[in-house]
Amino acid sequence: MIKNELLYEGKAKKIYATDVQDVLWVEYKDDATAFNGEKKDKIAGKSRLNNLITSQIFEALKAAGINNHFVEKLSDTEQLVRKVTIVPLEVVVRNVTAGSLAKRLGMEEGIQLDQAIIEFYYKDDALGDPLINKDHIRLLNIATPEQLQVIRNNAIRVNEFLLEYFKNVDVRLVDFKLEFGVTGEGDILLADEISPDTCRLWDIHTNQKFDKDLFRRNLGSLTEGYEEILTRLGGSSCSK
Amino acid sequence: MIKNELLYEGKAKKIYATDVQDVLWVEYKDDATAFNGEKKDKIAGKSRLNNLITSQIFEALKAAGINNHFVEKLSDTEQLVRKVTIVPLEVVVRNVTAGSLAKRLGMEEGIQLDQAIIEFYYKDDALGDPLINKDHIRLLNIATPEQLQVIRNNAIRVNEFLLEYFKNVDVRLVDFKLEFGVTGEGDILLADEISPDTCRLWDIHTNQKFDKDLFRRNLGSLTEGYEEILTRLGGSSCSK
Repeated sequence: MIKNELLYEGKAKKIYATDVQDVLWVEYKDDATAFNGEKKDKIAGKSRLNNLITSQIFEALKAAGINNHFVEKLSDTEQLVRKVTIVPLEVVVRNVTAGSLAKRLGMEEGIQLDQAIIEFYYKDDALGDPLINKDHIRLLNIATPEQLQVIRNNAIRVNEFLLEYFKNVDVRLVDFKLEFGVTGEGDILLADEISPDTCRLWDIHTNQKFDKDLFRRNLGSLTEGYEEILTRLGGSSCSK
Repeated sequence: MIKNELLYEGKAKKIYATDVQDVLWVEYKDDATAFNGEKKDKIAGKSRLNNLITSQIFEALKAAGINNHFVEKLSDTEQLVRKVTIVPLEVVVRNVTAGSLAKRLGMEEGIQLDQAIIEFYYKDDALGDPLINKDHIRLLNIATPEQLQVIRNNAIRVNEFLLEYFKNVDVRLVDFKLEFGVTGEGDILLADEISPDTCRLWDIHTNQKFDKDLFRRNLGSLTEGYEEILTRLGGSSCSK
């Protein structure tokens, strides 16, 4: 596989074309950003941790029958994924109150929800990624009602899998963000990443945080938290 | 009917008990507020205009078979309504982009929508009345899924009626806010008010504003705009 031109550089990843038409080369970056880019830092080792954790989770999802864009881990900081057109929605699934949900509804953090909550945010930095509803999604022509139902059902399946997956290593899956893409054939496919950058992950006993809130709220070493997740999941670096 | 103790004083109305158990006495106020109470003023004549316009609209809705809390107009600034427990939702129906929708989605104002958009805001001043979705409504225990469906269907019916009602007097119904209550028997009933305080109403030819945006955006005399709506609807004061 040959890495070709840079197609896109985001806050956390660079995406390159390859010599295979439907395959992209993803390079994770050490940049950490929060609050829509207002807080920024470079954290050595973050790219490795997110790439390794995401690779492992997407492989586990695939093994569990939840199809996704992941193709192969290339190195500690790189992976190959299937090319999709990203649906401009941040699909947030919540099992426990935290962050913007707690703020929006005036609730304390840490309350276990009887039933998962799903939220759709319009992926638009200039607008601050606002919460939107299904009428807005229809108006913006982001997804058809059928595609939105597929996305919702997929988000629920991913949540059911990940709840167990993390519980097995004594981690509480508080909430997480998913992104989906559309393949050339028009199918909806889980994409982007699933890592401590995009999940809230707390120790199941102590509620110690192992996720990006360490950076957002200056609570301690981000890499130590992420490394703990990688270790608990039994992950390791590439042996090349 | 006897007016008894004051039960509640809101930003725009005072609500009194009466000697009839299920009937409340509503007194409209001259206070104008916007931006969650940040902008405030007293505007002589506003109470009369909103009471007369709301009374007329709720009567017209009733005549069209859309049940609501309105009982009777008592005076230029007072009316009787049926007692309900207000569901803490601001139900916003939009036919044209304006206000917070335009801001949220990064769209210009004044774009006609193919299909009405319905939004639910959590009625909570301290939280700034945030937009919420049906999962949040379930979590907050605001309404059952069945009640929410009744509310949505009612909002669509009210919109269909009001679109025609205002079109007949050359007024463009841009958007409006509804509130619903639950009766002692557990039925959902349209409540609160429908007036230029709670609707955006533009001249159908010139897009001249006749609603609270006159006050919010300092665009001209609020009472002149509201009086224009009352006149076009053929309304008049009480002849007592």
